[in-house]
Amino acid sequence: MGRATDHAAALDAARIAARLDALWEIARGPEGGADRPAYSAAEAAAMRLVAGWATDAGLRPALDRHGNLWALPDGDGPLVSSGSHVDTVPDGGRYDGALGTVLALEAASALRDVRPVAVLVCAAEEAPRFGAGTLGSRQLTGALDDVELADRRDASGTSVPQARAAFLDALADLPRLERAPVERLRAHAEVHVEPRHDLRARGARLGVVERIAGPHRHRISIEGEAGHAGEVAMTARRDALAAAAEVVLAVERAGRTAAERWPATVATVGSLDVRPGSISVIPARAVAAVDIRAVDPAATAAVEDALDAALAEVAERRGVRVTRERLRADDPIALDPRLAGLALDAAGRRGVRAARTHSGSGHDAGHLGALVPAALLFVPLAGGQGHTPQEHADEADVLAGGRVLVDLLAAA
Amino acid sequence: MGRATDHAAALDAARIAARLDALWEIARGPEGGADRPAYSAAEAAAMRLVAGWATDAGLRPALDRHGNLWALPDGDGPLVSSGSHVDTVPDGGRYDGALGTVLALEAASALRDVRPVAVLVCAAEEAPRFGAGTLGSRQLTGALDDVELADRRDASGTSVPQARAAFLDALADLPRLERAPVERLRAHAEVHVEPRHDLRARGARLGVVERIAGPHRHRISIEGEAGHAGEVAMTARRDALAAAAEVVLAVERAGRTAAERWPATVATVGSLDVRPGSISVIPARAVAAVDIRAVDPAATAAVEDALDAALAEVAERRGVRVTRERLRADDPIALDPRLAGLALDAAGRRGVRAARTHSGSGHDAGHLGALVPAALLFVPLAGGQGHTPQEHADEADVLAGGRVLVDLLAAA
Repeated sequence: MGRATDHAAALDAARIAARLDALWEIARGPEGGADRPAYSAAEAAAMRLVAGWATDAGLRPALDRHGNLWALPDGDGPLVSSGSHVDTVPDGGRYDGALGTVLALEAASALRDVRPVAVLVCAAEEAPRFGAGTLGSRQLTGALDDVELADRRDASGTSVPQARAAFLDALADLPRLERAPVERLRAHAEVHVEPRHDLRARGARLGVVERIAGPHRHRISIEGEAGHAGEVAMTARRDALAAAAEVVLAVERAGRTAAERWPATVATVGSLDVRPGSISVIPARAVAAVDIRAVDPAATAAVEDALDAALAEVAERRGVRVTRERLRADDPIALDPRLAGLALDAAGRRGVRAARTHSGSGHDAGHLGALVPAALLFVPLAGGQGHTPQEHADEADVLAGGRVLVDLLAAA
Repeated sequence: MGRATDHAAALDAARIAARLDALWEIARGPEGGADRPAYSAAEAAAMRLVAGWATDAGLRPALDRHGNLWALPDGDGPLVSSGSHVDTVPDGGRYDGALGTVLALEAASALRDVRPVAVLVCAAEEAPRFGAGTLGSRQLTGALDDVELADRRDASGTSVPQARAAFLDALADLPRLERAPVERLRAHAEVHVEPRHDLRARGARLGVVERIAGPHRHRISIEGEAGHAGEVAMTARRDALAAAAEVVLAVERAGRTAAERWPATVATVGSLDVRPGSISVIPARAVAAVDIRAVDPAATAAVEDALDAALAEVAERRGVRVTRERLRADDPIALDPRLAGLALDAAGRRGVRAARTHSGSGHDAGHLGALVPAALLFVPLAGGQGHTPQEHADEADVLAGGRVLVDLLAAA
């Protein structure tokens, strides 16, 4: 830094905290957490708050047709942008999405006299309401269209386009963009609270994300034979649940083995549906939902190969029919290496211990990377778990992340 | 037999088949099977048919207050009795319950001039509607009272006493018994189609049941820790479903091991409930329903001891909390050895290959054994599975079973 002006000195810790509080108070869930579902009235209320803060910062807020909020500086030249999201999981945390949104406003304000910085708050990032997240950023990049979205409905039967229309109506007072100004963007950076306790355990106060895992999802169905639990001898059974138990353990084992070589690799059976599901009947059918994530496609392939071998062995030995149906197979996303290097350099100059890391979950920045060089910075969890009301980040870490963001946007 | 009169010659194969058909036609399920739920209008219709046949046989039909149908010969002296049930599982078979009912009428008729034989058709034997079976016989023996029954409801919320009242109303035209004449009974014998394919595989055409398994049931709950499926490292998880998979396999292994020493032993996990049950969330909780059956209490104890050791090991190794709650612990029931011996002797004299066997499922005869020496004879399954529309018994086996029943009732 030397004698040069430290633009990041303009970051205001009290204002950051007050804005996080204001977003947090909009709607609270049964457990006391933030409760702003995708494309809900609560997300709209949060967008309106952010639009007001953007105006205070001299930016012009406007919505694109997907519901994403753009806050643009004057002029029509090249831009860098930053931002995150303001929707939450049910009973979510104070920092998830909100932190990156508030810090983007701080950075745009701090760099007001240095270069044009836009704030981009993507709509509908969280998955619970519609079973799929990053809806705003994926519409922006063209990765999701309305035909696909019309099939996604919430528990009350409302489709994504219906919810989005209601969301845009609720924000009818905000200006609209005919076209999102994506072609003006030169770089985009998102700060996000880290989703797992990793950075502090590694002695780091900032994470620079290099890759985002690509989820592969499978439905594994096992067909055995029902029978009276009191009458069919142990040796005469084709028990679908016992076979499914071996499949669950095979998924875990495949994930563990791959993680020894590719540490970011995880494999999970999140649900298991057993039919008929009566205490006195040997299960005839079981369906397992499998999620595999890795930042290296070779790791995903190793898990799937190990799993296929296990499925064939279980089917053969137990005389059950096992089928695997692939529901989704996303490639891992690489973030921009030059921006990651700039972020690590900035952290080094500021004495912020930074670590290269990965994300197991999707983020808007990853999808925006299809349009523009993108960076993703993680502020460490200091307490609680992500996606819970207890989620907590340390103020010093928040400021450190904000300062590195300012430097990154200035240099990008 | 020799030159003595063969009373069993009166058994009428055509009448037996016609009566099985008449019961079968009362109500049919979606798969074409017999559909006469416990305490339903269809069971009442079947009871009325049987009451008519009993009258034709010179017996006086009457209902006790539990809905059991008694068909009594004239007089008030000692009796032997036979019968089964006329309710069915949904889409059940042609023989289950119906066969023992129809053969009891044949036997009572055949022995009319020999000794007084009553027919006793127990109500509500099958478990699906209320989650518990043998309701009529267990009320008769005092093993179930109305306080317990009031807690049992069907899917529409109707309690057992409400369903029983409607059932008795539907049969208001039949006489009532002030008191069931249990003190007059000297022996009771039930013929039932075997519930599994076992006898013919052993070269037998009749099974003489010595013991009925006592079900032990447990609810095993596993508490782990939820987490993002993409974010929590494999080594940092406390996955309740992976732990539950080991429990499922431990139940199976404990059952198999015990069955090597006590062949009638079985152990089953019939249902597994996984929460939150989302593809992207590591399961926090799993609840398994376990059913263990054996005809020797030592076998049940061996399964439970092995299971407890496995549960403790899984809990310790995986850092999850595992609790086992016993829902039910019935003792095995021994049927009357003298009656079993008489049945085996009768089969031997008639050249019917008979085998000693056990029942893994409950039967009215087992419960009635608390009041009166009781016997249970199995007619082999010749095709299909029990409790399905395909359930089939061979006519020659049916007649052989009927003849042994006649001899047994005559000698008991």
